[in-house]
Amino acid sequence: MEVNNMKVDNGVNVDALLGAREALTQAPEGARFNWRATCNWVGGTHSNSQVRGFYGLGGEQSHRTEFSFDSDHPEIFASEDHGATPVEYVLVGLAGCLTAGVAAVAQNREIQLRSVKATLEGSMDIQGILGIDSDVRNGFDDVKVVFEIDADATKEEIEGLVAQSQKRSAVYDIITNPTNVHVAVK
Amino acid sequence: MEVNNMKVDNGVNVDALLGAREALTQAPEGARFNWRATCNWVGGTHSNSQVRGFYGLGGEQSHRTEFSFDSDHPEIFASEDHGATPVEYVLVGLAGCLTAGVAAVAQNREIQLRSVKATLEGSMDIQGILGIDSDVRNGFDDVKVVFEIDADATKEEIEGLVAQSQKRSAVYDIITNPTNVHVAVK
Repeated sequence: MEVNNMKVDNGVNVDALLGAREALTQAPEGARFNWRATCNWVGGTHSNSQVRGFYGLGGEQSHRTEFSFDSDHPEIFASEDHGATPVEYVLVGLAGCLTAGVAAVAQNREIQLRSVKATLEGSMDIQGILGIDSDVRNGFDDVKVVFEIDADATKEEIEGLVAQSQKRSAVYDIITNPTNVHVAVK
Repeated sequence: MEVNNMKVDNGVNVDALLGAREALTQAPEGARFNWRATCNWVGGTHSNSQVRGFYGLGGEQSHRTEFSFDSDHPEIFASEDHGATPVEYVLVGLAGCLTAGVAAVAQNREIQLRSVKATLEGSMDIQGILGIDSDVRNGFDDVKVVFEIDADATKEEIEGLVAQSQKRSAVYDIITNPTNVHVAVK
């Protein structure tokens, strides 16, 4: 088993993650994180958000570089399409979360991945955001994610990876369950 | 009032949006949209998502260009930090959605915006995603958004813009209310 374990390399440092779990079990206050973004309006429906600093493990942390994201509406909404729509960013977050989870779980289960592709679709009736019908919600009415995974594993084992990734996914939880959002004006 | 209306320009084509609302009220099947993303695993917790095509107004649509997003975990999680974390993408989506809404509502209410800045923070106890404590949820336990808006308006009017933006925001709805997510393996 140890030989097999050494051969499997999905690029995820599972030992470090298990070490972090052990350390945070002893010192759970380190597990309090704050993730941040700042957003500046550019014009029209176009805005630019920056992501860099966050809080965790008891102190201020930082990404290696600042990440910058343009968000806009498409031309069919009479906008200039300078970036992905806000709801597409949510799909990107879900895709990244579930895919990272698949890789981490595969490493832990000693399954070598060769490729992982996820296709996401969020359906929405825009009668909600346009205020045409107050019975229609603003957000997605349904999200579908389809994984195509090539790995040294049976179909059942691959389905097990995806199921475990879902179970521990932050963004899956954020979309499927309600979260308080407080909006204030300074 | 008409003169005032001509002077206010936040770059949002409200007439087009009101026209779309009118057209979709007559033909609500055009309001069915599907937003998409495809995601490819790069290695470790790093993935890359692409956004381009979507469905709406009864047919296939496309952004002017493809948008590409790297997602990863930071170095303190023993990852290589090639991109924003998945949960930060959710904050970016929320920021972009509320900010575009503020601009559109301001245009409709004939309020000239000079600057709009939003600061977002999502708190999370990572004991959830690490599987330390099953009573701790995986996602955000709370999200805070603070707007700083410079506009030709009273504080009360500015608060009204933000409130109306929230009321019509797709991403605000996605985060605050539950949505079905179906995950399958092809």
